Amino acid sequence: MGISRRDFLMRVGQAGGYSAAFTTMQSLGLMPMKASAATPIAAAAGVGKGTKLVVLGGGIAGLVTAYEARKLGYDVTVLEARHRPGGRNWSAKNGDVVEFIDGTKQNVTWSEGLYQNMGPARLPSVHGTILGYCRELKVPLEVQVNTSRSSFLQNDAVNGGKPYVQRQAVNDTRGHVSELLSKAIKGGALDQDITVEDRQRMIAFLRIYGPLDRTNVYKGSDRALIKQYPGAGSQEMIIDAETVPMHTLLDANFWTGMLYEEAWDWQATMMEPVGGMAQIPYAFAKSLGPIVVYDAPVTEIAKTPKGVKVTYTKAGATKTIEADYAVCAMPLTILRKIKADLDADHKRVVDTAVYRGSYKIPWESKRFWETDYNIYGGLSFMAQGPNPVWYPSCNLMAERGIIVSGYQDDSYENFAALTLEEKFAKSRAQVEKLHPGHGKDLEKPVFCGWRQVKWNEGSWIGGIPQKDYNILTSPDGPIYFAGDHTSHVVGWQEGAATSGRRAIEMISDKVKAAKA
Amino acid sequence: MGISRRDFLMRVGQAGGYSAAFTTMQSLGLMPMKASAATPIAAAAGVGKGTKLVVLGGGIAGLVTAYEARKLGYDVTVLEARHRPGGRNWSAKNGDVVEFIDGTKQNVTWSEGLYQNMGPARLPSVHGTILGYCRELKVPLEVQVNTSRSSFLQNDAVNGGKPYVQRQAVNDTRGHVSELLSKAIKGGALDQDITVEDRQRMIAFLRIYGPLDRTNVYKGSDRALIKQYPGAGSQEMIIDAETVPMHTLLDANFWTGMLYEEAWDWQATMMEPVGGMAQIPYAFAKSLGPIVVYDAPVTEIAKTPKGVKVTYTKAGATKTIEADYAVCAMPLTILRKIKADLDADHKRVVDTAVYRGSYKIPWESKRFWETDYNIYGGLSFMAQGPNPVWYPSCNLMAERGIIVSGYQDDSYENFAALTLEEKFAKSRAQVEKLHPGHGKDLEKPVFCGWRQVKWNEGSWIGGIPQKDYNILTSPDGPIYFAGDHTSHVVGWQEGAATSGRRAIEMISDKVKAAKA
Repeated sequence: MGISRRDFLMRVGQAGGYSAAFTTMQSLGLMPMKASAATPIAAAAGVGKGTKLVVLGGGIAGLVTAYEARKLGYDVTVLEARHRPGGRNWSAKNGDVVEFIDGTKQNVTWSEGLYQNMGPARLPSVHGTILGYCRELKVPLEVQVNTSRSSFLQNDAVNGGKPYVQRQAVNDTRGHVSELLSKAIKGGALDQDITVEDRQRMIAFLRIYGPLDRTNVYKGSDRALIKQYPGAGSQEMIIDAETVPMHTLLDANFWTGMLYEEAWDWQATMMEPVGGMAQIPYAFAKSLGPIVVYDAPVTEIAKTPKGVKVTYTKAGATKTIEADYAVCAMPLTILRKIKADLDADHKRVVDTAVYRGSYKIPWESKRFWETDYNIYGGLSFMAQGPNPVWYPSCNLMAERGIIVSGYQDDSYENFAALTLEEKFAKSRAQVEKLHPGHGKDLEKPVFCGWRQVKWNEGSWIGGIPQKDYNILTSPDGPIYFAGDHTSHVVGWQEGAATSGRRAIEMISDKVKAAKA
Repeated sequence: MGISRRDFLMRVGQAGGYSAAFTTMQSLGLMPMKASAATPIAAAAGVGKGTKLVVLGGGIAGLVTAYEARKLGYDVTVLEARHRPGGRNWSAKNGDVVEFIDGTKQNVTWSEGLYQNMGPARLPSVHGTILGYCRELKVPLEVQVNTSRSSFLQNDAVNGGKPYVQRQAVNDTRGHVSELLSKAIKGGALDQDITVEDRQRMIAFLRIYGPLDRTNVYKGSDRALIKQYPGAGSQEMIIDAETVPMHTLLDANFWTGMLYEEAWDWQATMMEPVGGMAQIPYAFAKSLGPIVVYDAPVTEIAKTPKGVKVTYTKAGATKTIEADYAVCAMPLTILRKIKADLDADHKRVVDTAVYRGSYKIPWESKRFWETDYNIYGGLSFMAQGPNPVWYPSCNLMAERGIIVSGYQDDSYENFAALTLEEKFAKSRAQVEKLHPGHGKDLEKPVFCGWRQVKWNEGSWIGGIPQKDYNILTSPDGPIYFAGDHTSHVVGWQEGAATSGRRAIEMISDKVKAAKA
């Protein structure tokens, strides 16, 4: 199940890869998903004419649903509880407020021009659907740096808690692996597995792969730790031949931190909109205009003989809207609090779905990571405490920036139980571990814990049984469901966008069948 | 010798890493070179007051020399043969001309807003000196994408010439290596090398590193080839379990292409100035103002009792300038054509130094690599023909862009001997190999072969014996030498910048000693 994918990426120490037990076996071959433009919906032009649609929730799934519905001629309205579009796609900046369900309010007071993507913050180049919308809506993109070889891996239990720079950990690991394999091959251990001809070629390959010296031993390289960078005149490069022993690397258990960058949705190139991820929902909202009604929380969803009736409040008044179909694109954590005319199966799934509580703790700071560490974007992974530390990709070389120290589930190390001040102290201490003397540079922290954020009450859906997923992805009469929780790309805008397209395709099939 | 470093990066199949025989043993520890700002020159404030300096050549080395000299109070003039600063640092655009020494002129006629960095095109985050100047001169930077997992590796002799996407080649290679090493460890082949405890931990590690399945076999993963990307509803991810066999990967000899990204000066994060690399020399030139004299080719360098006399032409007239010191920051290929009052050693080195003839062939095209291949920046490496294909990092998702097909030495496959039309045909064919049907999309090619470019006649210095390097980096009386050829970072702006700083430090030492 793709459902657990997001959680996988949040955890350390699990084996990579998906189950191979897949239901669909459609080969697309070498060619990846295209991002040439939002490809047309699989529905006839004008199919929606004369059909009224109401979309509940103006996050990415709801916005995509409405955007595609309008293209097909539907009369569509989006009801959004907040005063802004985007849902979790939120680029917080000065003047914004993080509002929790318990009434806690944190004011964002960062310097002009600074922002933090509190929800989605990356656009993988293989997420062709959401990128297609960026292209279609002309949202300017810049590169999001997910990998920096200057960032760190750190474990309190290893090296006295001192971090290793990623270029050393990554390259020393490959060096040791190559040396061991070279030795095994030369010793004849793999004679049954490798032909005589390939044995020599493997050894030649491992010399470059490691790299190994002429005796097939790994002694560091310019890829790993450099004692002295080269310069003019007699200043030559000096490589550190003191590599981190494999035993230490095994102790450190750094490998998941190292290999994140190879996961399909974390591989280079990744992108982000210039000015913040929220440029995407704002671009949809600008296109949709009055179709999106803000400050309009839904209070009831009822089935009627001809479709649905949705009750909501707006400026203190109770209002209703009748439609042929509804697409429910709000979190199940919010839906379950609304009086909704759902069948028993759907009601059970909505009520019992488990949500995660991922958080981010962004701080304003001068950019010491750039000036003193040559870190321009990327992540430092830490084995204990709030993790990772995430450096900004935007506005490189500006005076100040927003650094995230801690982006994980609030259940980890019982973080949810701490007071805000305790959370901030732990978050600051992580930066101090990596960048001694710079913990004090951090200012104006915000704890955006999605489990507590009003109108969300969760970061994304956790594991869900296949049976329940099948129910959730099937309509309940005129009520359809969208959102990343109805996709195999949970916690990503790609999942939300594809789910909105799927909902409108399913509705269009039904509309077409009814007309035939 | 760093001298050969640049050449190393241009060649395929050599083992990585430097000679460990270094002369200086100054440990800088974990902390990399800082880019906090251009650090002050090691010279007393005002040391240059009353001293006249002439700098020959307005490339990065000459500009840095003049910029630092002015800070120290020197009366400084830069003579530049061209009508622009920067030398090889040139962002060619519509209206520019590639002018060869044989009189050939190629007009650049690309669409508005498009440009190509014909010389340096990358700023590694560990090149702290040149980045420090970017910071000091407020040159806006963006990320330069050096690695894209969506780009290709291709070899005519393997897979019927069809390219492999890098995510598959890179990750299948690690998968096979991990499987083989796991098998060797389990078979006891490395019992002498790995403790009992570590053996189990190595096997657990290799399961993630590979990744391997529970039987320690590599069967692909989401890191490598994906047949179907996940989406909404029932659309789950389908991984291609048909991995590229190790035997094929060995045949393909892809590893250098794979491992470039780990070289110290190719590692993420890399950057580039917004609007082109030439923003750097233009920022220096703006700061220096009338200190830089353009269209002023030097014709003679003479020693005088009190220093040097330099003859140059300007607007048809012959002019001279007298100074206490000269810093010669022009290519040795140009210097050797000038009547220069050098001692026998320096003259010999200048006359005999071997230069490389690297070229780039940029084309204008619609961005099919983005729309159809999800390639946003990065490089595709090819085993035969002009190589690599380099995709632009700037203006992602714009309609059109500049793609480079061929960036290597003109001696490779005797490329220099071909006519321009033959070169362009070969260059276009490379794109067609990787992106069938798109060769025809390429328009308006330019062959920027630095061996033939007027005022350069070479891309960078080739190998140079240590004895000759020692001569070149020592002054000849009042004449000092700067340029990346007097550094261990040949072919990079970092080498040029550090060489300019070194020249002015050496001169300041002499000035101070003379005053004492």
